[in-house]
Amino acid sequence: MYSFDTYVRVEYVDTDKMGVVHNSNYFRYFERARCETMRNIGVNYKDIETAGLIMPVIEQYAKYISPAYYDDLLIVRTTISEFPNVRMRFDYQVLKQQNGAEKLLCQGFNVLAFMKPDSTRPQPCPEWVREKLHKVL
Amino acid sequence: MYSFDTYVRVEYVDTDKMGVVHNSNYFRYFERARCETMRNIGVNYKDIETAGLIMPVIEQYAKYISPAYYDDLLIVRTTISEFPNVRMRFDYQVLKQQNGAEKLLCQGFNVLAFMKPDSTRPQPCPEWVREKLHKVL
Amino acid sequence: MYSFDTYVRVEYVDTDKMGVVHNSNYFRYFERARCETMRNIGVNYKDIETAGLIMPVIEQYAKYISPAYYDDLLIVRTTISEFPNVRMRFDYQVLKQQNGAEKLLCQGFNVLAFMKPDSTRPQPCPEWVREKLHKVL
Amino acid sequence: MYSFDTYVRVEYVDTDKMGVVHNSNYFRYFERARCETMRNIGVNYKDIETAGLIMPVIEQYAKYISPAYYDDLLIVRTTISEFPNVRMRFDYQVLKQQNGAEKLLCQGFNVLAFMKPDSTRPQPCPEWVREKLHKVL
Repeated sequence: MYSFDTYVRVEYVDTDKMGVVHNSNYFRYFERARCETMRNIGVNYKDIETAGLIMPVIEQYAKYISPAYYDDLLIVRTTISEFPNVRMRFDYQVLKQQNGAEKLLCQGFNVLAFMKPDSTRPQPCPEWVREKLHKVL
Repeated sequence: MYSFDTYVRVEYVDTDKMGVVHNSNYFRYFERARCETMRNIGVNYKDIETAGLIMPVIEQYAKYISPAYYDDLLIVRTTISEFPNVRMRFDYQVLKQQNGAEKLLCQGFNVLAFMKPDSTRPQPCPEWVREKLHKVL
Repeated sequence: MYSFDTYVRVEYVDTDKMGVVHNSNYFRYFERARCETMRNIGVNYKDIETAGLIMPVIEQYAKYISPAYYDDLLIVRTTISEFPNVRMRFDYQVLKQQNGAEKLLCQGFNVLAFMKPDSTRPQPCPEWVREKLHKVL
Repeated sequence: MYSFDTYVRVEYVDTDKMGVVHNSNYFRYFERARCETMRNIGVNYKDIETAGLIMPVIEQYAKYISPAYYDDLLIVRTTISEFPNVRMRFDYQVLKQQNGAEKLLCQGFNVLAFMKPDSTRPQPCPEWVREKLHKVL
């Protein structure tokens, strides 16, 4: 299991008229946190595309527990628990420091597939990505 | 069970560098379709807020089956299967006409709660909303 | 001069914590209105790309006069005043029906260039687009 | 004159099917850079709202010179040249390090007003904001 924390500052444009972060934006936060987590492992998503693969999201979920507000500094904790084959799963917790403890605001996951742009058949996780993951998982 | 179709034209801003609709935008489509479905039933979401309630999304999910492209005219089929109590669930199918048949691109759901803005306790679905729903469910 | 009205329903996700449409979203409305205006003339932007050209926005401006609110049904009036050469300018007025009159909420413009994807040199407006524009301008 | 650099990593969701950052997202970058610039001066925009004022954007402009790509690390250079009265202007340059030099991708500006939420009359820039600005301008 590997976990990495990405800090996300809530922007004005992220909020809606309820005064809180709009539900759809958590999936943007998930994406940002996933890319930074992979970068930390040594896998830049850009290099995956340069190597001829894409990783579309094929499934995702979020559960909203408590709202996030403008200017909040959120922690998006990304966890990889399973070694990827043709798919790769990421779990997320969106947290906020409050009174010296971490408060859970949202949790979710998504599953991405390794694909070639011109094919609908899933591809295996590339060897160079597996090697990087082996070092942390 | 009640179903309603909302048409959504894919805009340029909805696409990403894969050339397809970005995963996060399906949740925007769900929101648009949900509001139009409720409007069709006779419940304008604005009136719910005017009446002192809000309906935050507390959970949502999407499964991506086939990509949507720029300028596609999507059908977002919204289905209400359960009579709401303190929560209300909506199911969505994103479809596209292709070769005389409907092709399923994405399916998902979300669950919303009836809440007062200043409280974390769920509220019952208002009577006037229940009356409108009774006519169709 | 050619003008065309596109109707845009303000969505929840378009609003921010001020309770109004976020300034950046007007540029999304401009894009939607521009595409519908061109479609109405007989030019689908998708066909421009299929024909090997792209039309990046090279300049744009908006002036915000009065806020738009959730669920407002806005009119985005798009005007083409100049016959395009290597660039094409669109002017926009965002209006709202109020007390039997049109209230101006926002006005702006953008300028797009005709380009080949692999070149930085502007291209002339294609002949088939010029023909369609000649019929209305 | 006061200038401050904010770093913005281009995210996947920011790109469109042209493979570049969508024009509307630069206004999101401007907002992020403006907030960080003001924070650096000692003025958190949240505190302005807590003090009973809002600062809506009343005008904005962008000129797109060269595209930004996924994963680019952009510099958004924000400049304040005029001491604010009832309005405050920010100028932006979006830059990218390339071959040891800064390449200009986009430049723009916006003008914000000091307002009370329940009034359409502009308000003077609050004294505590003026004091912070006096230290840097």
